[in-house]
Amino acid sequence: MLFERVESEGLAHYSYIVGDRGEAVVIDPRRDCEVYSKMASAEGMRITAVLETHRNEDYVVGSVELSTRTGAEILHADGQLGYRYGEAIEDGTVVKVGRFEIEAISTPGHTPGSMSYLLGDAGGDPWVVFTGDALFAGDVGRVDLLGMERAEEMARLLYDSVFKRLLPLGDEVIACPAHGAGSVCAASIADRKWTTLGMERKLNPKLQVAGEEEFVERMAVELERPPYFREMERLNLTGAPLLSTVPDPAPLSPREFAAMTEENAVLDTRMELGFGAAHVPGALSIWLDGVPSFAGWFLPYHKKVLLVAETADPDTAVRRLRRIGYDDLAGYLAGGMVAWHMAGKESRSIATADVHDLCTRLDREGRGKAWILDVRSDDELESSGRITGAHHIHITQLPQRIEEVPKDRPVYIFCGSGLRSMVAASILQREGWDNVTVILGGIAGWSSVACPLVR
Amino acid sequence: MLFERVESEGLAHYSYIVGDRGEAVVIDPRRDCEVYSKMASAEGMRITAVLETHRNEDYVVGSVELSTRTGAEILHADGQLGYRYGEAIEDGTVVKVGRFEIEAISTPGHTPGSMSYLLGDAGGDPWVVFTGDALFAGDVGRVDLLGMERAEEMARLLYDSVFKRLLPLGDEVIACPAHGAGSVCAASIADRKWTTLGMERKLNPKLQVAGEEEFVERMAVELERPPYFREMERLNLTGAPLLSTVPDPAPLSPREFAAMTEENAVLDTRMELGFGAAHVPGALSIWLDGVPSFAGWFLPYHKKVLLVAETADPDTAVRRLRRIGYDDLAGYLAGGMVAWHMAGKESRSIATADVHDLCTRLDREGRGKAWILDVRSDDELESSGRITGAHHIHITQLPQRIEEVPKDRPVYIFCGSGLRSMVAASILQREGWDNVTVILGGIAGWSSVACPLVR
Amino acid sequence: MLFERVESEGLAHYSYIVGDRGEAVVIDPRRDCEVYSKMASAEGMRITAVLETHRNEDYVVGSVELSTRTGAEILHADGQLGYRYGEAIEDGTVVKVGRFEIEAISTPGHTPGSMSYLLGDAGGDPWVVFTGDALFAGDVGRVDLLGMERAEEMARLLYDSVFKRLLPLGDEVIACPAHGAGSVCAASIADRKWTTLGMERKLNPKLQVAGEEEFVERMAVELERPPYFREMERLNLTGAPLLSTVPDPAPLSPREFAAMTEENAVLDTRMELGFGAAHVPGALSIWLDGVPSFAGWFLPYHKKVLLVAETADPDTAVRRLRRIGYDDLAGYLAGGMVAWHMAGKESRSIATADVHDLCTRLDREGRGKAWILDVRSDDELESSGRITGAHHIHITQLPQRIEEVPKDRPVYIFCGSGLRSMVAASILQREGWDNVTVILGGIAGWSSVACPLVR
Amino acid sequence: MLFERVESEGLAHYSYIVGDRGEAVVIDPRRDCEVYSKMASAEGMRITAVLETHRNEDYVVGSVELSTRTGAEILHADGQLGYRYGEAIEDGTVVKVGRFEIEAISTPGHTPGSMSYLLGDAGGDPWVVFTGDALFAGDVGRVDLLGMERAEEMARLLYDSVFKRLLPLGDEVIACPAHGAGSVCAASIADRKWTTLGMERKLNPKLQVAGEEEFVERMAVELERPPYFREMERLNLTGAPLLSTVPDPAPLSPREFAAMTEENAVLDTRMELGFGAAHVPGALSIWLDGVPSFAGWFLPYHKKVLLVAETADPDTAVRRLRRIGYDDLAGYLAGGMVAWHMAGKESRSIATADVHDLCTRLDREGRGKAWILDVRSDDELESSGRITGAHHIHITQLPQRIEEVPKDRPVYIFCGSGLRSMVAASILQREGWDNVTVILGGIAGWSSVACPLVR
Repeated sequence: MLFERVESEGLAHYSYIVGDRGEAVVIDPRRDCEVYSKMASAEGMRITAVLETHRNEDYVVGSVELSTRTGAEILHADGQLGYRYGEAIEDGTVVKVGRFEIEAISTPGHTPGSMSYLLGDAGGDPWVVFTGDALFAGDVGRVDLLGMERAEEMARLLYDSVFKRLLPLGDEVIACPAHGAGSVCAASIADRKWTTLGMERKLNPKLQVAGEEEFVERMAVELERPPYFREMERLNLTGAPLLSTVPDPAPLSPREFAAMTEENAVLDTRMELGFGAAHVPGALSIWLDGVPSFAGWFLPYHKKVLLVAETADPDTAVRRLRRIGYDDLAGYLAGGMVAWHMAGKESRSIATADVHDLCTRLDREGRGKAWILDVRSDDELESSGRITGAHHIHITQLPQRIEEVPKDRPVYIFCGSGLRSMVAASILQREGWDNVTVILGGIAGWSSVACPLVR
Repeated sequence: MLFERVESEGLAHYSYIVGDRGEAVVIDPRRDCEVYSKMASAEGMRITAVLETHRNEDYVVGSVELSTRTGAEILHADGQLGYRYGEAIEDGTVVKVGRFEIEAISTPGHTPGSMSYLLGDAGGDPWVVFTGDALFAGDVGRVDLLGMERAEEMARLLYDSVFKRLLPLGDEVIACPAHGAGSVCAASIADRKWTTLGMERKLNPKLQVAGEEEFVERMAVELERPPYFREMERLNLTGAPLLSTVPDPAPLSPREFAAMTEENAVLDTRMELGFGAAHVPGALSIWLDGVPSFAGWFLPYHKKVLLVAETADPDTAVRRLRRIGYDDLAGYLAGGMVAWHMAGKESRSIATADVHDLCTRLDREGRGKAWILDVRSDDELESSGRITGAHHIHITQLPQRIEEVPKDRPVYIFCGSGLRSMVAASILQREGWDNVTVILGGIAGWSSVACPLVR
Repeated sequence: MLFERVESEGLAHYSYIVGDRGEAVVIDPRRDCEVYSKMASAEGMRITAVLETHRNEDYVVGSVELSTRTGAEILHADGQLGYRYGEAIEDGTVVKVGRFEIEAISTPGHTPGSMSYLLGDAGGDPWVVFTGDALFAGDVGRVDLLGMERAEEMARLLYDSVFKRLLPLGDEVIACPAHGAGSVCAASIADRKWTTLGMERKLNPKLQVAGEEEFVERMAVELERPPYFREMERLNLTGAPLLSTVPDPAPLSPREFAAMTEENAVLDTRMELGFGAAHVPGALSIWLDGVPSFAGWFLPYHKKVLLVAETADPDTAVRRLRRIGYDDLAGYLAGGMVAWHMAGKESRSIATADVHDLCTRLDREGRGKAWILDVRSDDELESSGRITGAHHIHITQLPQRIEEVPKDRPVYIFCGSGLRSMVAASILQREGWDNVTVILGGIAGWSSVACPLVR
Repeated sequence: MLFERVESEGLAHYSYIVGDRGEAVVIDPRRDCEVYSKMASAEGMRITAVLETHRNEDYVVGSVELSTRTGAEILHADGQLGYRYGEAIEDGTVVKVGRFEIEAISTPGHTPGSMSYLLGDAGGDPWVVFTGDALFAGDVGRVDLLGMERAEEMARLLYDSVFKRLLPLGDEVIACPAHGAGSVCAASIADRKWTTLGMERKLNPKLQVAGEEEFVERMAVELERPPYFREMERLNLTGAPLLSTVPDPAPLSPREFAAMTEENAVLDTRMELGFGAAHVPGALSIWLDGVPSFAGWFLPYHKKVLLVAETADPDTAVRRLRRIGYDDLAGYLAGGMVAWHMAGKESRSIATADVHDLCTRLDREGRGKAWILDVRSDDELESSGRITGAHHIHITQLPQRIEEVPKDRPVYIFCGSGLRSMVAASILQREGWDNVTVILGGIAGWSSVACPLVR
């Protein structure tokens, strides 16, 4: 038997392959889907079906790509939407995989037509349920995607899905969600890599409610919604282009690169320190591991993208950008920043300071003068504490609220570690802010030393 | 600087990548061309041009595939032919690669428009010459491809190419041909992996001639011409389909496989012993390492191909078949012959005997009765000796001369090792010969034991 | 957080790595343990401890190897035994891994000092329990290892371990055993790749008992005990040699190989068909995927081992043999059987027949004459049916009961697929039986065609 | 036939494997020698001999390591030295490799007992000569290793070796040296990846001499001699420890790391920009690709080494350090500099400026005040020009001449690209210089913009 989880790092996206006796089914495949066909053919299995748990909004689903390679049938949840490919699946539909059966269970709430898939012996006991974005380890799916005006309605659907359809399957059933910790599809997914319905029943904070009303009330929270969701929704209904038709970014000499920076977007995936020391003017900083989470917020789809990377070949960044639909990658800076400087090109820098430096400076400059910008989320502020006197703008809100940041005072930026602060600083610098400093180590560093400002 | 040879095993095909300062050029790429783009991007180089030394007839050239991925320009030798893509290159044309230059040198003979490419410092001394199929280690290209009636004309062209254009470049120049030992493009390429013009001048048997007339006379040899050459010539003029559009063969259950054997071709790539013991009725035997050399002789292009392999996943066979244009691979037997037998399917066998068995049998049966078939080439017969009383039909001639083989006598088949004998036996069995035995170890085994029949 | 299972194919051995915040712990590592250190260092984690669930008897545990590479502490269950390395662990001992805790729970029965390890948040709810060989998916550990005279005592211990210590942890807790389907450590492990205590409580056949007495009664079964267990027990107490000190087997020419076959053991890992067609005289047949299960039964530890493989490099066979302590691998036949025959060496063959052949022969020869040997296990006979008139000797009993097989009648050997039959046939041939035939497809093939003999 | 070059990046070290008919020989193996045994066993070849061209002083030769794995015989050039393992080889000794022969040719000069190895058909024409450090592409080996007082003597030996023994072998013979461009074993090896004796005769600048006297005169140059040569010489005579006995560096938390920085050496392999922005106080900067060339100059052998790397796992740096004998790697900073700052640890920075910044500053500060330090080599100064008014200290001389650098003036450091400048800056900072600035892009950047100071 074949049963594996495939994890797409950064997106915290979990997909699954289940196979038996020459057949295999993939649930929610990612776009770079060779991984599934390799697993299947290593076992002599043919991928016969692709099951989607819902219309995904946070990544490009690989259904078309995988179906094209393997001839697999595509079965959509949210079949009420106007898909341009594949077939809708109904509650109760059974898909066979060798000796096993997978039954579709309607579990709406996150989306109106979300499905879960229950795997078990043919006619026998359930073993695993693939819960999509209905139920996670430690959380449930957000219900605000159709707008807050429909959030209550969706929350009631989700309550029924979780309490009346999923949990009754039994404490012992293994629950396989579509996301792990770090996803944008729920507020606070736990760090448990594998979980069970019983574990969720007991430990999932969202399920510790007196009844439907309390659940609905608690769910009435509007979460953020990255602008790229709209692009993903569009792509996932029409089907993304096959990866083989998407050209690889070309290596560009500093001269070629410089000639293109004006009209295109420049993304620099190096770590915060290298970016701070020197970068191509106008570049957006997103460190490599932050690309899946932050590119969709700050990198436009209507421009070509130019890449600057630490290593010779930006292939990891490219793969991650493709997963969220950035196909128009115009090129990358061959030889990186060393080549840039050797060609005599100008670069810009952003100041960095560790927390000890900051203390010294605040003492020297006077606290009144400094403007401290904290770009962490509300949740982080709650759990890790606030900085006295700091101004809070969650990084995702920065483009809209940028005018709140003064231009005539030194701005010190905090996040959890310093990485997102550099993202924020690169946005501020591009828009004309000159006097910004990233605090290295962020709130973690700040809390590690005795410091009067915190909490 | 980047300078690497890429070898396609089995075809004995050599291609080359040369790069410097952000640019790279590939000479005679193979179809599965990711290897070149990976090498280039690891060095931050863009592949800007693909150079072909001649219109290839023995494999699918990867020019279109590589150009599609990288935007490289395609430059054809034999530009007089009606190519459907790319541009013709002229004698004397110079292509720049960073600080280096590659100059086209017209070296006709193998084909009417063959080119060699001379690599050197810009304006400086020559360093390497890519000789295509004009000059190999230990041989020169065959001149009979346009028919024996034009062989003399082509031989004279080749004489000039080698003696007036290539050798004068200097003994010290490294010669990089398009094939190594084992290719069908010349009679007897030597086992030297790298060579120089001086080494060829001194050691290449074909160049040890008194003058043009002797050269022409010696070249007047008609070599074999596998039927797949015609398909390769066609594909290389029109451009082969992109590999990403060619579906992978599906794993097939024994039942599915059995239902398809009637109308399609079955290719079994296992070793001779396993095939001999049991195989799908009607299957053609070509052991995996023999696929590049023998599929083009015996496997038709107008049928779909079904595969039987030793391992779960027949990916090596698939890659090798693609390189010679077999794109219509219908599927493979999932679980291999074990699954076939477990499904209760019938199989056939072909007898095998080691040389000791053979002696015993000949003694028992009487030599008069046995019919010994030797499927080696003329060259092999000459170099390794003949078997007294054996009938010689080179394996490539077997389909046309099959009626020479008696059906009413025991047939013992010899080749160099036993591998080709099983190919021949599978062809004979398919056509109705029942009493064939493959001699394991072939002539090598025979010669290893004291044996009265040889030489 | 890091939580991965590492599976050793063939042995059906499961080991686990758990990591958090820079620290990682490995449970029951295998001997080729680079896999764990790579996983850990990819996450910047140091392996601080190796936990053993019991003194393993079916493979070489990698504790010493892993500890040498990483400095990890080794903690033994069954600490009452005289280990030459590491420390004993006690019931209730807690090992920290970042924010998590792993608590040792005494679960004797399979061995007198078996431990399970409960993973959970520090001071919080249990999440996963590593059950070693106490509890599997669909089975429990065997209790006959100390001899049947102590089986009842051990079964009572195991009853308490499972019903009083493990199951009360909660239905929702994920159970991670040390073996999957196919192990020799329990009779019939299920095909569930992940399970929970609740799923076992409901579905595990061994747990469906009225009470302790029924459990004990049912457990009073003597299972087979491969002779290699003794070697594993010895090695696992003293510590196996570091793999880096164990020399790789050398490629041997046919001449060299032939000179060594007399005094050493020859193991041929090719598939049944190739072996049947021709093999080195005296060779033991075990197909590659059968090596972990069958080498320990039939391959002696006191001789050097010579290998014959399908491929150029026998590395998979070597790795699998090392896992069960075969370190003295003298060499392998370079060039395989083709080289053997080309060197004029004699080989032997074993007849094979598909089920259709067999029918024909039985009709022809008369059933009375044929002696049908069925080498499947009792369990298989029960689940898949018996062949009328067949003689049953489980393959593992063949060496002791070989004299029951007649030498003067044609012997037809059946197993499930034909693979084990070839193992049996190779043993019979070596001991002087000449007239043996392996039935290809075995009972599966037999059952696939209408056949009067079955059930 | 097997004939491959194995290149160790950074060291520009070339080793070779030659194999035929089941046997293979390796010339000058590197220490991490699995690459050779894999190549050999993929072809079914046994490595029977290791040939050394001379006692190497610039890397740890892998002879002992490879011999231990394979049983290969070790044959030393420079056999007059007191090797603790292996045998000496004599001029004229012939080693067989299948159908080929390798003949030792005494070619002293670089060392007193250097050997070249001539590969050819048995009794036939020479094909390839492995020239060790006697003859390179575009250069010859240095003759100053025994001290300048013996340089003339050695130069005369080398003259004979090259002109009387190597070149007479024939223009067409392929020359395979032990190093490519970038090695410390010769002044200026050319960028030709493959060469021939004829090409060297014509193009090698060192060979364009009127006779022995001119050759000797030109060779009378003292090259630099990294301090690690002494350690390599020692290790290569006694035999370096087997890599499997050398423990891997452990991931260390910032707290653990910080506690160890006092007594050990800290090596930071990140690029110049990240290092400049922030680094562990006291760290030595050597960017990853500079490690093979510069670690041996500045990193002591008598201290343990602590690593800071860009990526989670410093394995590339570790492999490179092992190749030059740094075995005592105490650990690496888990989580890198982000973790360091999140733990609230202090870091230091070094200022960087692009060439435009520099112009501005010089104008502002006045040129008289600035002190420009150029750390390039004499050769680079000659070929790329000098900076007017700059002070030249080759980076390798910096530790000895550090007092020449003023502490009370701003120091601007130039190299070719900015990478070595950061190495120099880290050394200066560690020794108490506070006001140093690295010029990004170095002389290349400087030359790319119109700039009055150059040449």
